[in-house]
Amino acid sequence: MSKCRVCREPAVIDLPRHNANFCGEHLQQLCRRQVEKAIADHDMLRPGDRVLVAVSGGKDSLALWDLLRELGYDADGLYIGLGIGTYSTESGEYARAFASDRGLKLHEIDLRDAHGYDVPTAARATRRVPCSACGLSKRHLFDTAARDGGYDAVATGHNLDDEAAVLLGNTLRWDVEYLARQYPVLPAGEGFPRKVKPLVRLTERETAAWCIVRRIDYQVEECPMAAGNRHLGYKATLNEMEARSPGAKATFYLSFLERMAPQLAEHRASEVAALSACAHCGAPTTGEVCAFCRLVEVASAHEPVPVELLARSGRR
Amino acid sequence: MSKCRVCREPAVIDLPRHNANFCGEHLQQLCRRQVEKAIADHDMLRPGDRVLVAVSGGKDSLALWDLLRELGYDADGLYIGLGIGTYSTESGEYARAFASDRGLKLHEIDLRDAHGYDVPTAARATRRVPCSACGLSKRHLFDTAARDGGYDAVATGHNLDDEAAVLLGNTLRWDVEYLARQYPVLPAGEGFPRKVKPLVRLTERETAAWCIVRRIDYQVEECPMAAGNRHLGYKATLNEMEARSPGAKATFYLSFLERMAPQLAEHRASEVAALSACAHCGAPTTGEVCAFCRLVEVASAHEPVPVELLARSGRR
Repeated sequence: MSKCRVCREPAVIDLPRHNANFCGEHLQQLCRRQVEKAIADHDMLRPGDRVLVAVSGGKDSLALWDLLRELGYDADGLYIGLGIGTYSTESGEYARAFASDRGLKLHEIDLRDAHGYDVPTAARATRRVPCSACGLSKRHLFDTAARDGGYDAVATGHNLDDEAAVLLGNTLRWDVEYLARQYPVLPAGEGFPRKVKPLVRLTERETAAWCIVRRIDYQVEECPMAAGNRHLGYKATLNEMEARSPGAKATFYLSFLERMAPQLAEHRASEVAALSACAHCGAPTTGEVCAFCRLVEVASAHEPVPVELLARSGRR
Repeated sequence: MSKCRVCREPAVIDLPRHNANFCGEHLQQLCRRQVEKAIADHDMLRPGDRVLVAVSGGKDSLALWDLLRELGYDADGLYIGLGIGTYSTESGEYARAFASDRGLKLHEIDLRDAHGYDVPTAARATRRVPCSACGLSKRHLFDTAARDGGYDAVATGHNLDDEAAVLLGNTLRWDVEYLARQYPVLPAGEGFPRKVKPLVRLTERETAAWCIVRRIDYQVEECPMAAGNRHLGYKATLNEMEARSPGAKATFYLSFLERMAPQLAEHRASEVAALSACAHCGAPTTGEVCAFCRLVEVASAHEPVPVELLARSGRR
């Protein structure tokens, strides 16, 4: 029976990249410390900040909300109903149960109720991959909710695996502009709230373990719209490398932040464009009407598309 | 039966990254054009240059020598006997046969005859991986031979797979200094000849196909000292990515040259160190005695180590 590296009690998880095993108590300590370090290293949050957590009902967003409360932040949640069939129905139930069990404040927006469309319909109407309309909708609604609610920052549950996979994709094409923008904090500016990713030093295996030892019920199912996408291919490649050489994934992402990101700082700075207020909703945009309002116009005019139809149509 | 993209004759090879098949004639055309493009894009060689080709007896170095002659360059070969058991004995035979069949000039240096050691013995004497002493020996001897023989450049057979694997290794650690130096041409300077890699736009599958259609006998066996090293692990990772997404490997390497290498140019420039002549051999060095002469001193004093003993000792 393997033992906790810290206290020698029975371990609940082995972490090859740390070359150690941990009990439930010291796994939590490790997770808290990694999140504190991420927040401190990148100046993500300060004491007293009001934080809006992007809550999906999955392990990462619920672990994030739990960890931020543990660390003393004033963190509320926002759940967006994306209308992806039973996947969305269930994810909302997990998010609501987590909040009500702990007496936390969860805001909710349902895409169809509030804006007359859902993600499968938007994908069909725009003839693009569902992740495109989904990401655009979430970014806009989180930004708007943070601004309207007076939050200092939006926090998302992107973990080390997510960030490393995005980094691998950008690196395989040496997309210098995208590489320059890949950073775990995006400062507030011109109507946008600060965006932070406090879980970037934790793998998805670690956030899942956090949920288990903290008895957090989360949605295990992955989004059916994402199945087979490139991002998951990059994750698989990184997992193969990690199996050959434990720690390779964390080194890849964290050494990028340390050694390469500073080299690309001038690319980030050169990116400030002139923004004006969207003629429809007032959100900052480079055009006359923002991308979200254009999406709403196209998607809400389209006949509703059930998720099953989209999954069956072989869109990839 | 698949057909050549160019002439519709029966194809001998399919190249998924070009989404096409080729007959022997048009495979050769493709290879010649890729080498011409590499030479032109990076200003590697000019008409009339005298080139010294690093010849190992494997597919890449023999294809390189053959291609450079085809393209009209005045190219001689240099084969170095590394003393790696039957692997070295056979590789020398392939190199000599290629040269004598075509009436080409092949210089030869045997490490043990000329300097009193071989690669397995050097690995044991220095307690480092064999590839370390091997690379150091080859770099020094090629530089010296080029200088003494009045050659304008040393050409090596590094192909796209080799360069992409080295790039992946450097990228996974974001080793900015190494990334800055990874370029297919290294200008002459301070006693060093120009170094060029004309095969960087060809995969190892393509150089092997070149040899087959040109009826070049080459050593198929890989160096037994390299088995299981990191470099081969990176090649495997890239091959998995290539299988998922044909062309990914070439995009990774070639877009690095195009988009990222220019960003790192200042790191290359800042690297010029003060060099003086080695007290023993006169080669340029940052110290008093060059690394090659220090290796010779240690390795030639060591009792010869047969390759079988090293392979059996589980050095990795």
